[in-house]
Amino acid sequence: MRTNSLRASLAGAVLLALACTGAHARDAAAGRAKSQVCMVCHGPVGVSTTPDAPHLAAQPAIYVAAQLRAYRAGTRKHEVMGVIARTLTDDDIDNLAAWYASIQIEAEAPR
Amino acid sequence: MRTNSLRASLAGAVLLALACTGAHARDAAAGRAKSQVCMVCHGPVGVSTTPDAPHLAAQPAIYVAAQLRAYRAGTRKHEVMGVIARTLTDDDIDNLAAWYASIQIEAEAPR
Repeated sequence: MRTNSLRASLAGAVLLALACTGAHARDAAAGRAKSQVCMVCHGPVGVSTTPDAPHLAAQPAIYVAAQLRAYRAGTRKHEVMGVIARTLTDDDIDNLAAWYASIQIEAEAPR
Repeated sequence: MRTNSLRASLAGAVLLALACTGAHARDAAAGRAKSQVCMVCHGPVGVSTTPDAPHLAAQPAIYVAAQLRAYRAGTRKHEVMGVIARTLTDDDIDNLAAWYASIQIEAEAPR
């Protein structure tokens, strides 16, 4: 009985920790598969070809997820992104964020 | 007299063109010099070291300038960026945008 209580407490603590960090699925491969629509403006590996669309390659997952949630909630406004973000689930957002964060970039400043 | 009129017309056309495109100074070196504050979160060459700050390296100038103007106007909201953007002139914004756009990036997707 004591062991069961301990297990239940541990399971509860893990669930609480997950809830507190807002943890969801973070699956870069699923994010890559979901990124077909994103590619139109942000390029196949997150290097944009559109002057008013940002590069997403290597962006921190926390940042990308926060922006997608802000577009979905309407607190960050953009005609196209608002429409697209409203179709995304929390898992979609976290997977897309994981995909873009998994891309590596090297930057070189002009001399 | 005809030459002077022609010159005046040309000068007027150039001014009109500048006004229509909203053209300002775009001086990447001045932008780099101005970017001391930006570096704190976005890194010395626009590669962020802060999980909630985006990489700015190679971002399209039009995008960066639009975001800085949105932060300045309060239409895009972020506690820190709102405060910083309110200190920037139009020239500062265009120069910062030119600086970040002048950085080259290479992106590599995971295998």
